[in-house]
Amino acid sequence: MNNNKITHNSEKVFPIGEDLEGARAQNILIIGAGLCGSLLALRLGQRGFNVSVYEMRPDLRTTDISAGRSINLALSDRGIKAMKLVGIEDKVKALCIPMNGRMLHDKEGNTFLSNYSGRDYEYINSISRGELNALLLTEAEKHDNVTIHFNKKCKSVDFEKTTALFQDHDSKDEFIEDADCIIATDGAGSALRKSYYLGKKFLFSFSQDFLSHGYKELSILPTESGDYKTYKNALHIWPRSSFMLIALPNLDGSFTVTLFLSFDEGEYNFNNLTTPELVTEFFQKEFPDALEIMPNLVKDFFENPTAALGTVKCSPWHYKGNTLLMGDAAHAIVPFYGQGMNASFEDIVEFDKVLDQNLESLPDGEAGWEATFKTYEKNRKNDTDAIADLAVDNFHEMKGHVSNPIFQEKRKIEMALEKEFPNEYASKYSLVTFNENIGYRHAMLKGRAQDKAILNMLTDKIISSEDDLKDILEKVKAETEAILEDDRIAGL
Amino acid sequence: MNNNKITHNSEKVFPIGEDLEGARAQNILIIGAGLCGSLLALRLGQRGFNVSVYEMRPDLRTTDISAGRSINLALSDRGIKAMKLVGIEDKVKALCIPMNGRMLHDKEGNTFLSNYSGRDYEYINSISRGELNALLLTEAEKHDNVTIHFNKKCKSVDFEKTTALFQDHDSKDEFIEDADCIIATDGAGSALRKSYYLGKKFLFSFSQDFLSHGYKELSILPTESGDYKTYKNALHIWPRSSFMLIALPNLDGSFTVTLFLSFDEGEYNFNNLTTPELVTEFFQKEFPDALEIMPNLVKDFFENPTAALGTVKCSPWHYKGNTLLMGDAAHAIVPFYGQGMNASFEDIVEFDKVLDQNLESLPDGEAGWEATFKTYEKNRKNDTDAIADLAVDNFHEMKGHVSNPIFQEKRKIEMALEKEFPNEYASKYSLVTFNENIGYRHAMLKGRAQDKAILNMLTDKIISSEDDLKDILEKVKAETEAILEDDRIAGL
Repeated sequence: MNNNKITHNSEKVFPIGEDLEGARAQNILIIGAGLCGSLLALRLGQRGFNVSVYEMRPDLRTTDISAGRSINLALSDRGIKAMKLVGIEDKVKALCIPMNGRMLHDKEGNTFLSNYSGRDYEYINSISRGELNALLLTEAEKHDNVTIHFNKKCKSVDFEKTTALFQDHDSKDEFIEDADCIIATDGAGSALRKSYYLGKKFLFSFSQDFLSHGYKELSILPTESGDYKTYKNALHIWPRSSFMLIALPNLDGSFTVTLFLSFDEGEYNFNNLTTPELVTEFFQKEFPDALEIMPNLVKDFFENPTAALGTVKCSPWHYKGNTLLMGDAAHAIVPFYGQGMNASFEDIVEFDKVLDQNLESLPDGEAGWEATFKTYEKNRKNDTDAIADLAVDNFHEMKGHVSNPIFQEKRKIEMALEKEFPNEYASKYSLVTFNENIGYRHAMLKGRAQDKAILNMLTDKIISSEDDLKDILEKVKAETEAILEDDRIAGL
Repeated sequence: MNNNKITHNSEKVFPIGEDLEGARAQNILIIGAGLCGSLLALRLGQRGFNVSVYEMRPDLRTTDISAGRSINLALSDRGIKAMKLVGIEDKVKALCIPMNGRMLHDKEGNTFLSNYSGRDYEYINSISRGELNALLLTEAEKHDNVTIHFNKKCKSVDFEKTTALFQDHDSKDEFIEDADCIIATDGAGSALRKSYYLGKKFLFSFSQDFLSHGYKELSILPTESGDYKTYKNALHIWPRSSFMLIALPNLDGSFTVTLFLSFDEGEYNFNNLTTPELVTEFFQKEFPDALEIMPNLVKDFFENPTAALGTVKCSPWHYKGNTLLMGDAAHAIVPFYGQGMNASFEDIVEFDKVLDQNLESLPDGEAGWEATFKTYEKNRKNDTDAIADLAVDNFHEMKGHVSNPIFQEKRKIEMALEKEFPNEYASKYSLVTFNENIGYRHAMLKGRAQDKAILNMLTDKIISSEDDLKDILEKVKAETEAILEDDRIAGL
């Protein structure tokens, strides 16, 4: 039992202004000021709500949180759409390093650049999680109606009373906050989601699925003059079938490197790489060109934690009009499509669309939020389920398929189609990554059908990469449509 | 906090005999004496292990547990294979009522019998859960090396120490039992699975998925002379697209009726059927012929609970060589394929096959159980995942497809193929239900491909139910193989 005192702060309503309809501004409590929570706070602040954010960690703008400092992420069109919504696209672009494609490294150290799209203007961006988060916090705090409290950890949420229990990191005191509604953006280990699960007050569908592989972050430091030790504008991949290494550039000339490896299977795995000699031997054998520019490998390897890779899905996300899960708290995914942050940012765009319907300002405020949350989940859930599945698929593609001949031929054809017919063809990767106005689910269904069409027609020698491109395009379109139609008839 | 005393019973080893290698008999603790646990106890007793079973409920042979008394289940070939393994097939057959097909009831009360198979000797059986469980308990207790303790509820399992904490129902005293290994067959709400999840000692993938529909058990009582009020040898279905009613016969002339209905959607649902008038109106409108033979409807409806329908999957099932989940504890499924009990019984058959490899009597006993559990899960998990998915599919088929013209034409063709070519064709239903030597996963993949082939060829007018059957068979076989091959190439 905890012996610290618990105080209940009755929420004081300071109407900072009247909204368009003249009703009082609603108080919204956000749990978690990570990427999703701080963007949500910014957007809801812009819309005139009274927003209080509680974050368990210290303010990353004033404290050196080394665990999260060097981590970078891939920002692409869905995320950028959200940045446009809140008007900070230019500030974000200044933090970005464009990555035009995958730079593949084979065991002999040969490299091969494979663009992400046949359209030159389509690329993804490496961005620092910490710097982007700091920007979002600063932008949110520019609104007087947004306040952010750090070092307050959420322990549980009483979703029937719409209150959350927090603990102060320093004093260990516990206190309760209430609000008109609570939105939890507290990540894969969400306190609200745990309260839903343990509360057993309603039927809560929930899954957590771990991959057999974990990951560890390493680094390629800059040269002494601050330059990049390898090609800057690419996402580097060392695919080795049952494991892989990747690297993304940082603004300071370094790369954040991530090793994806089985915990306990294969000749080398996280459980048996226990000595500096074994780690060096493994890299010497599998990633010699990376090892050459990673003199700090052994130190990084034994200092940095090994982490698990999991997918979380659940439903419902909301309890009546009281509480709502967003971002990773609702749908944590594995990182292999580079869409985790983008999907969370897209949540805000989709939520904002529902807010435009003004359902929450219906005469009965609570019923209004319920309608808002319900509509949002109904619109959004299929898409976040789809990106979760696509991300797991891409784990297998990145490890192995990128070096499989038939997949390489497919990729070659798709690049050519995108280049020749920029408005008529988009690969699954492009549909997911560069088509922010198509939902993930539609992108998944169409993209998978296209992949199946091309792979089967290549195998059956109905098409080949030597054929006329217009002819290939027509055949791929027709076969894709036939596959989708067959699935529809079979009720799939 | 619980104030009752906790005693720790050091497991006393009574070697009741020596096994083939001359080592001492291992002590196995089974949690739960339901259908799966009592069959497991019987089989492990037959194999010479020291078996202690702890069950939270009283002995259903001596206590009237009304909640479970009238529930009946569908026993089919996979379950019967397990009965043969333990040598009680004849005793079980005496409890069975054959159901040759589905008796469909339309809104006007017209009925139509649709056989489960084109082969006359293939049918499923209605059997009382209570009577079957009682038989299994009695058979298990015939072995001196099997003891069953009732009214002992498992609260948690320490899977690192291989001990389980129980509470006595009457005295409320708590006590700890240990064993060489613990197998939990304690159903969908398994205490061991909960300990895995809450323990966070290893990566535990887990899902619970609820349907939007719940169910309520009702009854059709026998006539005054003890006869059946409707046709005995069928599973009756009243499919109504978004909900349905079913009925299975009992030996005493009654039927157990189950209503599957949404909790909160549609004109009538469990949440809004709150008065006798509404319930009667609903049945009058939707199931008039059933209402006519259910004068006890309103009483049943308001006395019996409404329950949820959920699927549970998880992995790993075992922790080292210490503990193992089996039956619903490892893989709870929805009832729409009539395979829940059959899948659990098949678990015992598959586990028994692994025991035949004698891995558990390797020099290091614990490592041996680990090899046994690991091999069992590796062999079994794909199949239990498949039947879970098939059961959800069949929910939709039973509600709606059975009354959809193209699905009816498919069914007609499949019946004819099974009748004409009994050794060459088996529908998905037959593969799942009557082919106990084919795994569920293989049955699912082949069955789904066949369904897709037939539905698409019917839609494209490549086949029709008027065609020559031999011709249809060849086309279905070829198209099924092409679909499976296309999926293989696409990596699906």
